[in-house]
Amino acid sequence: MADIAAANREALDRLCRARPAWTAVRSGREALGLEGRTLLHAGPPIEWARMCWPMRGAVKAAALFEGWARTADEAEALAASGDIAFAPCHSRGAVGPMAGVISPGTPLLVVEDAVNRTTASSFIADGPWGHQLRFGAHGPETLNGLRWIRDAVAPALSAVLEREGPIDLAALMAQAFTMGDEMHMRNAAATGLLARRLAAPLVAAVPDAARLEPIMRLVTRDNDQFFLAWSMCAAKAAARSIEGLEASTVVCTMARNGVEFGIRVAGLGEPWFTAPASVVEGVYFPGSAAGDANLDTGDSAIMETYGLGGLAMASSPAVQKIVGAKSWEDALATTRDMGEICVGRNPLFPIAVLGGEGTPTGIDIRRVVKTSIVPKITTAIAHRAAPRMIGAGIATAPMAPFVAALRAFAERYGAARA
Amino acid sequence: MADIAAANREALDRLCRARPAWTAVRSGREALGLEGRTLLHAGPPIEWARMCWPMRGAVKAAALFEGWARTADEAEALAASGDIAFAPCHSRGAVGPMAGVISPGTPLLVVEDAVNRTTASSFIADGPWGHQLRFGAHGPETLNGLRWIRDAVAPALSAVLEREGPIDLAALMAQAFTMGDEMHMRNAAATGLLARRLAAPLVAAVPDAARLEPIMRLVTRDNDQFFLAWSMCAAKAAARSIEGLEASTVVCTMARNGVEFGIRVAGLGEPWFTAPASVVEGVYFPGSAAGDANLDTGDSAIMETYGLGGLAMASSPAVQKIVGAKSWEDALATTRDMGEICVGRNPLFPIAVLGGEGTPTGIDIRRVVKTSIVPKITTAIAHRAAPRMIGAGIATAPMAPFVAALRAFAERYGAARA
Repeated sequence: MADIAAANREALDRLCRARPAWTAVRSGREALGLEGRTLLHAGPPIEWARMCWPMRGAVKAAALFEGWARTADEAEALAASGDIAFAPCHSRGAVGPMAGVISPGTPLLVVEDAVNRTTASSFIADGPWGHQLRFGAHGPETLNGLRWIRDAVAPALSAVLEREGPIDLAALMAQAFTMGDEMHMRNAAATGLLARRLAAPLVAAVPDAARLEPIMRLVTRDNDQFFLAWSMCAAKAAARSIEGLEASTVVCTMARNGVEFGIRVAGLGEPWFTAPASVVEGVYFPGSAAGDANLDTGDSAIMETYGLGGLAMASSPAVQKIVGAKSWEDALATTRDMGEICVGRNPLFPIAVLGGEGTPTGIDIRRVVKTSIVPKITTAIAHRAAPRMIGAGIATAPMAPFVAALRAFAERYGAARA
Repeated sequence: MADIAAANREALDRLCRARPAWTAVRSGREALGLEGRTLLHAGPPIEWARMCWPMRGAVKAAALFEGWARTADEAEALAASGDIAFAPCHSRGAVGPMAGVISPGTPLLVVEDAVNRTTASSFIADGPWGHQLRFGAHGPETLNGLRWIRDAVAPALSAVLEREGPIDLAALMAQAFTMGDEMHMRNAAATGLLARRLAAPLVAAVPDAARLEPIMRLVTRDNDQFFLAWSMCAAKAAARSIEGLEASTVVCTMARNGVEFGIRVAGLGEPWFTAPASVVEGVYFPGSAAGDANLDTGDSAIMETYGLGGLAMASSPAVQKIVGAKSWEDALATTRDMGEICVGRNPLFPIAVLGGEGTPTGIDIRRVVKTSIVPKITTAIAHRAAPRMIGAGIATAPMAPFVAALRAFAERYGAARA
């Protein structure tokens, strides 16, 4: 019988020793080998016909951005015709928030973990607030934004990295963690730390003030969640270290496409185990309500896969307000619950109010099934038929994928409930 | 008999309703009316002959900066001759960290509280790390730094304020508080938030990249404590609202000059009550030790006067490490103790781990004497004979000034122990 305990110790060790660093900016073509009419999307595999509204909008944005279509209608017809190949971001070592659509020409962050020798990518940004591709926006503001990110922002960040060398995301995230970021729905501290790293070198990289000012604004000012792309890449780089780890029952992928929630398990390789995506229990912006909400979506649950986000809620008083946790005690209880379903703790992220013990890390499908405790995910909420964020909340993962994965594990390795 | 309870309720109300904003950059001459050979210094009044080494060094730096002397020896002779008038920063509505020396030409932040109609000032910065005036440095690096701050940094920040309007420090500090800053020894989050506010407007204000880059570096990158000048001004603006508040036993000033620790009390007006400054219980940088340390110094205890710093230690896991608190429980106990000697809580700064109750605010000399609990101050430690910071720690205020102030209060108002 497989030595599950040893495999899971190894999984925990890999997750904890990961030291992701931001090393480059590259296109989807260069970084991921995307070719032809290929688009990556968030969550488990899904075809055009079943995609939710935000993902369809993002697909249209990407097709327009790539020049595969001249109008949104043309883009829609193209997608419906089957002439676009769709694949999960996770199938290529990438991650995308919300709809999470990445095309060959999308400029991507490249994050590398030299310890585990993994890489991961996500897009830098995706249009101005209120017009982000990730929420399905595909109008002129979005397209102009995407082109500006490609033509101005990406080269500037690339030049900064050439001057500065790799930026140690593990150290930055460890510091941000002590500043109350759980790095899924709260990246305010990490965004500030990154802004402080980038601001002065950006001046040197982009000496023209008129070009520099909007870039500086994007990097420093527009968005407390700016760092999310970096935190997702870092978490994905860490999680990739356990993909395919023989005999391990630890979850290596947890993601949603707005229709389905899916997981992959280290010891089970490529297959996804899915169930309908959850309704997010949310706090809505004024003018929006639960009836407007899309189901849970995005690859950002990679944060929970890495032990952050909902798993670290006790460490983030601010996120508790953002996502509507009932109280600090409630957040503490959530982190304690998450400890019940994880194989260990990551000392890189010590939770002061729990005596400095690390955040719960490495979700074990056996423990989930045994305890009936499922992961809690702090998340943004997309409108189900309009291109915008309408709130934030807590998604409770469905139980079925964990049960199905455990059955598959038992079939492959023999009884695994021990 | 005076209605002490009502006066102290009013004091608490003023401290809590203060909403300081950064409105301008002005010279000591313009902002404080400093004229001739006048220098302000940290802490209670002190003459040249009794000043500690760091303050003497800072005086020399200021005399050289002002052109009153051509060499350090000339500056020293001038100071010893009695031709420089010394006064506490606090006597002019200003505050200075460590030696805290301010001259007529020093560029100052101007912070205004429109609610209580108060203003406060402190210097922006005082030379590069390792060569800061506040630690007594007065060599060419310091002087060049001071001139650059006057000629390049101050005009740039002034231009930013002209574009942006006042910057709401109350809101910024409230956010930084939830990110683990107690804003005395931990200003990392606030520094990041300020950097994010300033970076893009600085690009517009200083279009020349060669001039901009070092300014951007100063504002965003060099120093996690960059914001301390702003937090001290905000706290001083708040504390000024209770200066001279008839019948109040609340401390309105708490400051050290490196030789003596002193307080002033709202209901007692100008007089200082002093005792020898404390030895700081510290964590030293490698190569330094307790024997190198100057006694506790600086006006930065204005943070504790306002309910932050040591009083808020429970809210700042990071500062607990910086100042060497034994444990998180220990920090929690400190904040609880501080609650015993304060007249109330400031809801602007809610402490998540204490169920969201505000930080203890308004130190009451009666409670200090009654409980024998004295304020704890998180603080930097200056070398006693070299121009540098050698560590950080916790200073315990001496009891004698509180006892003396309470006696004076009883003499003026009748028995006050009730």
